[in-house]
Amino acid sequence: MATADLRSTEKPAYKVIGTRPVRHDGVDKVTGRAQYGADVRLTGMLHAAMLRSPYAHATVKNIDTSKAEAVPGVRAVVTSADLPDHGDRMVELGEGAVNMRHLATNVLAGDKVLYKGHAVAAVAADDVHTAREAVKLIEVEYELLEPVLDVRQAMEPTAPVLNDDVRTQSVGGADPGDDAKPTNVAKHILFEKGNAAEAFETAHLVVEREFHTATVHQGYIEPHNATAVWNADGKVTVYTSTQGSFTVRQQTAELLRIPVSDVKVVPMEIGGGFGGKISVYLQPVAVLLSRKSGRPVKLVMDRADVFEATGPTPGSYIRVKLGVSEEGKLVAGDAYLAYEAGAYPGSPVGPGCMCIFSCYDFPTARVEGFDVCVNKPRTNAYRAPGSTNACFAVDTVMDELAAKLGIDPAEFRLMNAAEEGTRRVDGPVYNRIGMVETVEAIKQSEHYNSPLEGPNRGRGIATGFWFNAGLNSSVSATVNLDGTVSLVEGSTDIGGTRTSIAMQFAETLGITAEAVKPAVVDTDSVGYTDVTGGSRVTFATGIAAVEAAKDVMAQLVERAALVWGCSADDVTYSDGAAHGPNGENLHFDEIAERLNTTGGPVIGSGTCSGVNQSGAFGTHCVDVEVDPDTGKVQILRYTVAQDAGTAIHPDYVEGQMQGGAVQGIGWALNEEYWYDGEGSMRNATFLDYRIPTCYDVPMIETIIVEVPDPNHPYGVRGVGEVPICPPPAAIANAVHQAVGVRMQQLPMSPPRVLAEILKK
Amino acid sequence: MATADLRSTEKPAYKVIGTRPVRHDGVDKVTGRAQYGADVRLTGMLHAAMLRSPYAHATVKNIDTSKAEAVPGVRAVVTSADLPDHGDRMVELGEGAVNMRHLATNVLAGDKVLYKGHAVAAVAADDVHTAREAVKLIEVEYELLEPVLDVRQAMEPTAPVLNDDVRTQSVGGADPGDDAKPTNVAKHILFEKGNAAEAFETAHLVVEREFHTATVHQGYIEPHNATAVWNADGKVTVYTSTQGSFTVRQQTAELLRIPVSDVKVVPMEIGGGFGGKISVYLQPVAVLLSRKSGRPVKLVMDRADVFEATGPTPGSYIRVKLGVSEEGKLVAGDAYLAYEAGAYPGSPVGPGCMCIFSCYDFPTARVEGFDVCVNKPRTNAYRAPGSTNACFAVDTVMDELAAKLGIDPAEFRLMNAAEEGTRRVDGPVYNRIGMVETVEAIKQSEHYNSPLEGPNRGRGIATGFWFNAGLNSSVSATVNLDGTVSLVEGSTDIGGTRTSIAMQFAETLGITAEAVKPAVVDTDSVGYTDVTGGSRVTFATGIAAVEAAKDVMAQLVERAALVWGCSADDVTYSDGAAHGPNGENLHFDEIAERLNTTGGPVIGSGTCSGVNQSGAFGTHCVDVEVDPDTGKVQILRYTVAQDAGTAIHPDYVEGQMQGGAVQGIGWALNEEYWYDGEGSMRNATFLDYRIPTCYDVPMIETIIVEVPDPNHPYGVRGVGEVPICPPPAAIANAVHQAVGVRMQQLPMSPPRVLAEILKK
Repeated sequence: MATADLRSTEKPAYKVIGTRPVRHDGVDKVTGRAQYGADVRLTGMLHAAMLRSPYAHATVKNIDTSKAEAVPGVRAVVTSADLPDHGDRMVELGEGAVNMRHLATNVLAGDKVLYKGHAVAAVAADDVHTAREAVKLIEVEYELLEPVLDVRQAMEPTAPVLNDDVRTQSVGGADPGDDAKPTNVAKHILFEKGNAAEAFETAHLVVEREFHTATVHQGYIEPHNATAVWNADGKVTVYTSTQGSFTVRQQTAELLRIPVSDVKVVPMEIGGGFGGKISVYLQPVAVLLSRKSGRPVKLVMDRADVFEATGPTPGSYIRVKLGVSEEGKLVAGDAYLAYEAGAYPGSPVGPGCMCIFSCYDFPTARVEGFDVCVNKPRTNAYRAPGSTNACFAVDTVMDELAAKLGIDPAEFRLMNAAEEGTRRVDGPVYNRIGMVETVEAIKQSEHYNSPLEGPNRGRGIATGFWFNAGLNSSVSATVNLDGTVSLVEGSTDIGGTRTSIAMQFAETLGITAEAVKPAVVDTDSVGYTDVTGGSRVTFATGIAAVEAAKDVMAQLVERAALVWGCSADDVTYSDGAAHGPNGENLHFDEIAERLNTTGGPVIGSGTCSGVNQSGAFGTHCVDVEVDPDTGKVQILRYTVAQDAGTAIHPDYVEGQMQGGAVQGIGWALNEEYWYDGEGSMRNATFLDYRIPTCYDVPMIETIIVEVPDPNHPYGVRGVGEVPICPPPAAIANAVHQAVGVRMQQLPMSPPRVLAEILKK
Repeated sequence: MATADLRSTEKPAYKVIGTRPVRHDGVDKVTGRAQYGADVRLTGMLHAAMLRSPYAHATVKNIDTSKAEAVPGVRAVVTSADLPDHGDRMVELGEGAVNMRHLATNVLAGDKVLYKGHAVAAVAADDVHTAREAVKLIEVEYELLEPVLDVRQAMEPTAPVLNDDVRTQSVGGADPGDDAKPTNVAKHILFEKGNAAEAFETAHLVVEREFHTATVHQGYIEPHNATAVWNADGKVTVYTSTQGSFTVRQQTAELLRIPVSDVKVVPMEIGGGFGGKISVYLQPVAVLLSRKSGRPVKLVMDRADVFEATGPTPGSYIRVKLGVSEEGKLVAGDAYLAYEAGAYPGSPVGPGCMCIFSCYDFPTARVEGFDVCVNKPRTNAYRAPGSTNACFAVDTVMDELAAKLGIDPAEFRLMNAAEEGTRRVDGPVYNRIGMVETVEAIKQSEHYNSPLEGPNRGRGIATGFWFNAGLNSSVSATVNLDGTVSLVEGSTDIGGTRTSIAMQFAETLGITAEAVKPAVVDTDSVGYTDVTGGSRVTFATGIAAVEAAKDVMAQLVERAALVWGCSADDVTYSDGAAHGPNGENLHFDEIAERLNTTGGPVIGSGTCSGVNQSGAFGTHCVDVEVDPDTGKVQILRYTVAQDAGTAIHPDYVEGQMQGGAVQGIGWALNEEYWYDGEGSMRNATFLDYRIPTCYDVPMIETIIVEVPDPNHPYGVRGVGEVPICPPPAAIANAVHQAVGVRMQQLPMSPPRVLAEILKK
């Protein structure tokens, strides 16, 4: 694997940051010791199963659970009637206001089912087999309704409407539409910068294309799970695999209308999330079953449940129009994005609108977006949600413009690249960013400059953007007598963050990464910490860890002063040791072993709140070969250049770049929800829903670019999401170079590619 | 139940302290939700059983485990050969230096077994039945040695010696004896104050008596348990019911010679400890079995194991000689205490020597103590270890003196009571104490002043002392948006301390006890905290909680200042609210709900280290009726007056007073290890080892006396231990008044009492 390393050379000489220690939870993971949700076993625990809708759209006239309740071994049966009514309550939950009625009826359907697989009822029994048999005895009377599965059909005035409480919400001065009439269009967004319409008149060249992308799933390996105990005093404990233990705590408390501090969430290890394990599905149901049965209850999904009932990322329709001057400078952009929300409002069309033009410096631009309900599972976050769809559209048009202008595509992107000071169409002005540096990295790479011979082969590049989140994080740390530190954090670890957080703590305190023992603990045992998402953990929880280390350092200085009988003001701390006024030195270990004789335990804590990231960019380069007889696209070579700000642990940065790229390749070439006319997903297994395997992709080459983020003490930028954005566009551009067709639909599966070749 | 309440009236007007909220873990306990050690189930977990010595004293010539290892389903067999050699390592473990060889060979016997039930080997298998069958196939070649079971026999030069590495350690200038020769006398203590020998010459009246007390067990309901996971990277996790999670962590790490921070101890709920669940027994064995098998291993004792192999409190021989003046003032005291250490040194004879004369103001005194090894299980702490034996001796002689002098026994104690400024024979000078107040409380009580009619009935009183411990504690606290606080502590809760700690935190912050949610967490998730023992938790962990509350308060003041746009210096905090310079007020709840918009999470922490308590006193009054035909002693009425300093939660203070008294009654009347000539315990079941039931004792009446301890911000004194000290003496004194015999042996079981009556 050829890996160039463009990591910053001007940065400070770090001792721990930038090294590659073995991850603290590595052995737990490879030896099977790590405890996942499925490993939870409680005394007296029941097992549960769910009844799910066989129809994509129907009214629920009646549910008769009597036969199920009569089955020996059945301890409890619940339906939406067991959930409190939420009316039109909107609740602020971490990442924005949530409509509680929508959240609740997605957990257990009310008077309507809105997608096949929609949860209708659940049974808890002595064993899972009894529970599954009992589920079959629940009698539901449905009245079928016409399903609507395509985003543009769903926008038609004549389309069947899913939610009669939905009206169009206007963002940025867009037309809210008729406020009296229920609609599937939950949101209408409009961003404008200057007068794009006029600017297009002045353009030397204008290209406009439309694009379709399919619904795809995050495809994590571990199914959703939850084990709950509702105690007689109303205290609730939930064991679950989640990206956000505090999010589960908040959502569960609000759904059941109990105090948030009465809910304790114990985050188990997580077998993949990618955004899909943030919202609650099973947790409130397990809690209700526990309350009814008076026993602990465990509920685990199977694969079909995961595909049919948990958040995929939206299918979308996008139109992009770009105008350039004769010299190749962008003069105007116009974009129209319609995203499928699934059953309830909440598609990532907002982020899509924020990202679509954000790699480039548009003097004028107009972006219009629509959040549209269709009879599919409610969409959920998936790595840089909304940005991949947008990147596919804009960066293939960029490629077409460059080709028509006869400008090298990398050069064309550099000519129009966003940089510090550029104002985005959605408002913000960039701080220091690394867009230019990632394009330069590819442009100068051995890959980009190597010849590509052979028929039906082509090379393409694309650049993606994700803004990255900040939010809230907490860290506590206690010093052990053996010269180690127990570090407690609330960020569930899905990408090696135990280690990236521990390394920042170690760097600050001047000790080794191995001397820090990180632990992800339950919601009662650590300060409030937002979800592991938005590429925020290494950034924000890292800042909290740095603050905790400084807190510990201040206390160690006092201990050293006590030992030396001097004032703490005369003691300094550096390189892992305290230094006295008369040249005395006490290493961290030496202070640690004296703790119990110098005042007892040392506890440090730190938090991070409301510190924003400056955004992340990545440029990808891909070589493909297209089989002209089958339309199959083979990835020959793939390189990711990405700005990590400062790479705390390069292995995991590279791992994120590679993992994101591979998921983007799957999205580009194969993955899609395949629905029949009745809205039934026909490929809800990993055999039929084809994610890439090691046979489909070469080793992904990586180039870490480091343009430190001024908002982080060590310059960290989140790296988890942006690598999924460029692959579809890069591959489409490579396909065009290979066989001369412009793919405008995802996935670029063999039949579709073949059809375009035959058309030509 | 008649309960007088002499709680201090001059104390500050507390809002939470002194109230009786429902304990936070109450519902968990009564609904069976609380997770005890036996509830632990891990994926792939094995079950283990132990082979124990059938002999009280023998050399182990050979152990052949091959047949056991050959049993299908057996995954690992361990013996002492699997433990590292410790030579004569002494290690500082929290409450003093521990001889690692003795600790190790008590966990798994080496070349000798020193008591029946001594652990020899352990087997881990797929199920506990297989493990138990395999244990029977382990062949051990013993060479029998003569056992020594009586403390004074063991002191004879000709007695068989248990440990050839034991020499007499001299304390306070006592004669260390022959340093060359192995001995059973591990320690010889001498405390002197003035010249007692000369003072006795001047005494108007001298009484000398000798006493024998039997070996008794703490009698907790839950047997010892441990489930361990030794991971491939050397990280160890132990789930266990213990009084000290950090003690288990330290002892396990030292025994296995691995870094302390590689061991994580998860304290499960505990079904009683009373001092007996501090030292490790099963934990290191479960860890070794896990290392060998590569699987989690669970090991649980049965009742016989608990009696035969875990720490009872020592049988003892005590001689006390007291001299008084004609007016009834003590002029001299002399005490000789010989305590059974069991198999290895470490009896509580030291505390016995510290306590025996500490209730009274002796102008001169001499105390000599001996720690003596015998072929019984190694003794361990039991409520005020060593003090009950001593109190039985001294306070019956005090009663005899009072009777001979014709002075009311309460009055006699008041005439000689220790008070602030009194120097104890072992050195310390008292700070403010409540000895006089507890005697006064009894003297003025309705009980003491009520007539006692009927034949064979008598009334007795006695006073006990326990010094109470300080040591180290840590507390962390995080504020929840719903106006509650999650409080994290390292002190395992055996007496309602979750609540007594939460109440002190709540009082300090001006919120309700219910608004604090306490959690006892694992050793990776909280700062170092010493054992739950020495009546220290409500005192020391309470101080840590007060400090944590002050830390939170300071941060809340900053948030309020931010809201008001003023300086934090201009903001005060009282009665659960921040007060601004212009009369603004923000209640705790209002600041809490604003946290995420005023700087994010708030985490507070506090520690307590090296703060000593001033000591606790209790005076008991008991009415008995003795059956002259059987010698059975019936408790008619029992009252406990005790100085609690400040009663944080009066229910739990009363509960400790009652529980301690009942255990003291059992010790006084029934409980004893019954050995046959070969040193085999013949009554190792709760049917044959008779602890008191509700049929044996009346409701214990309580009088809480409050003399605040100046060393605690709220005046707390530990209350858990001293109530077990007075019962044997008080009952013996009552028996004398009832039937005219002076009992000088415990237990005062029917045959012994009858024998004394018949002698008379």
